[in-house]
Amino acid sequence: MSTCLLCLVLLFFSVVAEATYYPGGFHHLSSLRQRKKASKSKSEFPFETRYFPQNLDHFSFTPDSYKVFHQKYLINSHFWRKGGPIFVYTGNEGDIDWFATNTGFMSDIAPKFRALLVFIEHRFYGESTPFGKKSHKSAETLGYLNSQQALADFAILIRSLKQNLSSEASPVVVFGGSYGGMLAAWFRLKYPHIAIGALASSAPILHFDNIVPLTSFYDAVSQDFKDASINCFKVIKRSWEELDALSTMKNGLQELSKKFRTCKGLHSIYSARDWLSGAFVYTAMVNYPTAANFMASLPGYPVEQMCKIIDGFPRGSSNLDRAFAAASLYYNYSGSKKCFEMEQQSDDHGLNGWQYQACTEMVMPMSCSNQSMLPPYENDYEAFKEQCMSRYGVKPRPHWITTEFGGKSIETVLKRFGSNIIFSNGLQDPWSRGGVLKNISSSIIALVTKKGAHHADLRAATKGDPEWLKEQRRQEVAIIENWISEYYRDLREEE
Amino acid sequence: MSTCLLCLVLLFFSVVAEATYYPGGFHHLSSLRQRKKASKSKSEFPFETRYFPQNLDHFSFTPDSYKVFHQKYLINSHFWRKGGPIFVYTGNEGDIDWFATNTGFMSDIAPKFRALLVFIEHRFYGESTPFGKKSHKSAETLGYLNSQQALADFAILIRSLKQNLSSEASPVVVFGGSYGGMLAAWFRLKYPHIAIGALASSAPILHFDNIVPLTSFYDAVSQDFKDASINCFKVIKRSWEELDALSTMKNGLQELSKKFRTCKGLHSIYSARDWLSGAFVYTAMVNYPTAANFMASLPGYPVEQMCKIIDGFPRGSSNLDRAFAAASLYYNYSGSKKCFEMEQQSDDHGLNGWQYQACTEMVMPMSCSNQSMLPPYENDYEAFKEQCMSRYGVKPRPHWITTEFGGKSIETVLKRFGSNIIFSNGLQDPWSRGGVLKNISSSIIALVTKKGAHHADLRAATKGDPEWLKEQRRQEVAIIENWISEYYRDLREEE
Repeated sequence: MSTCLLCLVLLFFSVVAEATYYPGGFHHLSSLRQRKKASKSKSEFPFETRYFPQNLDHFSFTPDSYKVFHQKYLINSHFWRKGGPIFVYTGNEGDIDWFATNTGFMSDIAPKFRALLVFIEHRFYGESTPFGKKSHKSAETLGYLNSQQALADFAILIRSLKQNLSSEASPVVVFGGSYGGMLAAWFRLKYPHIAIGALASSAPILHFDNIVPLTSFYDAVSQDFKDASINCFKVIKRSWEELDALSTMKNGLQELSKKFRTCKGLHSIYSARDWLSGAFVYTAMVNYPTAANFMASLPGYPVEQMCKIIDGFPRGSSNLDRAFAAASLYYNYSGSKKCFEMEQQSDDHGLNGWQYQACTEMVMPMSCSNQSMLPPYENDYEAFKEQCMSRYGVKPRPHWITTEFGGKSIETVLKRFGSNIIFSNGLQDPWSRGGVLKNISSSIIALVTKKGAHHADLRAATKGDPEWLKEQRRQEVAIIENWISEYYRDLREEE
Repeated sequence: MSTCLLCLVLLFFSVVAEATYYPGGFHHLSSLRQRKKASKSKSEFPFETRYFPQNLDHFSFTPDSYKVFHQKYLINSHFWRKGGPIFVYTGNEGDIDWFATNTGFMSDIAPKFRALLVFIEHRFYGESTPFGKKSHKSAETLGYLNSQQALADFAILIRSLKQNLSSEASPVVVFGGSYGGMLAAWFRLKYPHIAIGALASSAPILHFDNIVPLTSFYDAVSQDFKDASINCFKVIKRSWEELDALSTMKNGLQELSKKFRTCKGLHSIYSARDWLSGAFVYTAMVNYPTAANFMASLPGYPVEQMCKIIDGFPRGSSNLDRAFAAASLYYNYSGSKKCFEMEQQSDDHGLNGWQYQACTEMVMPMSCSNQSMLPPYENDYEAFKEQCMSRYGVKPRPHWITTEFGGKSIETVLKRFGSNIIFSNGLQDPWSRGGVLKNISSSIIALVTKKGAHHADLRAATKGDPEWLKEQRRQEVAIIENWISEYYRDLREEE
């Protein structure tokens, strides 16, 4: 069984975007994480752990900016030949070990390239906490958590590493999935002198500042279910009414707790709504066979499996019962859970860190239309802003990401600027709607698969991988090979 | 008479680089500035002054980062047609009015392009001081003075301005000279979604981290004088011995004060040395006829004029007397000075600001070889570091600029990345040695003239301009025209 931590982690995006509608609801996340951590044995984790001293603030020179923290990174030099390529994963919102474990693609291709593998942890996540346990305590400390500081961390670490390895001419290629993919793409754009190219998998860099329609994410989730079965889509869409009806009934919450087998009594119908929605959203994100298919050992695509359950109920069954049964497949794939924790609050730093980022720079507004199968809601920026202020004491800067990194008219801008970026996306991943889906130039390439879920390409290859996934990976390898040979050719000419 | 503020200002670079050798010595600067300020009448300064609210820190979200200051900018919409191009000067280390006054090229070409002109003041200079008069008081306040924050200021201001003008599709071209040229080039590299191209005049972006030899700047100064007259070069080179000899004599300093007509008695021979060296260095920087020729109304190139004086002395004259006479031409071009202030300390914020920047990010190491005509010295990084610590309480980050903006192997990197930058240089400008002097790609272009001084191309055209300068400007206009038509073509295709 393989986990899908990356994709779950990314849903942090929508936690905050929907904060007024779906507070909490990520209880399953930390349990998955813990399990993964426990199962990590030395043999399956061939990385050496190191720590690099970083300045707290690269963009100011105040006395505070010189405070040093230790950034964790993982290194695997098993396949490396000195002078050969360095493949760097630009860590996103979480413990870098999870990303290393879940980005098997890099390990798979390292022998072919004789590449050094490096996974760098993002500041304020995992062990890379500038103020130790106090890092997440206040706006004063959290203030240094953002993407530009993270990119500068990567730049400084990579440069120093190459120098220490006496391998300064080694070409560096950056890889990342989800927010990590955004970082990889932005790193190539901002630090072309440090990375010769980037593979940005499922990187929704256009999910800002109304570049893509606000409804696109949930529209895509709905489309996945519609594609699997129109009936399935309708059942889920109708289930919310039944849920609402329950909540207005006398003892409705009690009834609901029983129906949904919650470990403790429910305090709010919203928890159940989040729990159900979360299952459908996550399943859409991980909708590809084998690698991410932790939902029982059935063959095929997760959404299809869910819809089989829904469609398999006898005529006239309750829509809510069907939706619950489908969601249970996601939350209880092993069948071992006796009850569900729906209101457990997570104190996970990864979650908190991302929510903070979503409250400052990573403002990705969303809404859910009437046509979607999920409960409709309008984006309410004012409410979101207030929530950020009360929770973190910060005012969002909703236009900052597009000012700093661009995104509007991206084709026109990058058609004549920049090179060597692969944007890979699977159209069944709802985040793909915020990704780059068309080739921009001869070397800023979109690799899009009709099927395919959240950065499926970055996972380790498995026997059951479908042909479209194998082909996507083959293309990625071929393009990266080209970048590297071109780089060495340039280097020889330079000499 | 035209001033040469930009070029003088840039010499701030070398103040700190040579700090142990030439402390102070820029007394003439503030007097030039004051005069210019006084003479600015409304008719010759067709700009409207505005102020834009900026966050103190764009790269953190601490409570302090939200502090708002007012950034000054100048705007001239006289030639503009809505939807037409916007030409932005990316202000460098000083009052933006000086740069507007001294960048006549932009005003000269604005009618042809029907362009809007905008000059943005750099944070911590002129009136754009985030902490008012206290801005330069401590490391806590000065810490927010740096190039990346300045670039982000420009990005935010430009975006907001376009929105307010309802002219979001207008192409923006950035212009800058000297440090302003570095900012223009870096702005295009980091914010290609905001500026379609950059004219970076005399931008020594390679003068960092030992990319160019440490001796190159003073070698270039010496070469200018050698080219004008070998004898002149030799006289200056020999004058230092005579100066040193005087200082060891009884009453030597007194004698020197008399010889150099100082207003007050000299305390150190170094002041006289700086004063002399400064004259030669500045003259090399402004070495082109007419526009910058404020040294009397003689025709021809300033270095040649100096050398004519030196060579015109009778045989056997003292080398020091000759050097003094030449330097006097520079400091007393109007002939009205009765004595020279050689030890006056400047409290000019521009100077202080730049020295701070040189102590943090703008670390441009230099040394002066035995082959140079100026007093030789070795670069002493440790001494420099200590001086920065004692003066500003900061530790330099000498590798930061090349990490953030690149520079090493620039041809290889930018050959396949980026577009639309003109690097213009005149080889007689000693800063040209740190500039980009070869075409990097079909649209990252070096316009190099054999003659030509520090960003001569950015000055207003005058009748006496030499043909090489006219031709350089013609090429700049043609290239910018191409960028703009290409942009509008792309825009039409996009629709």
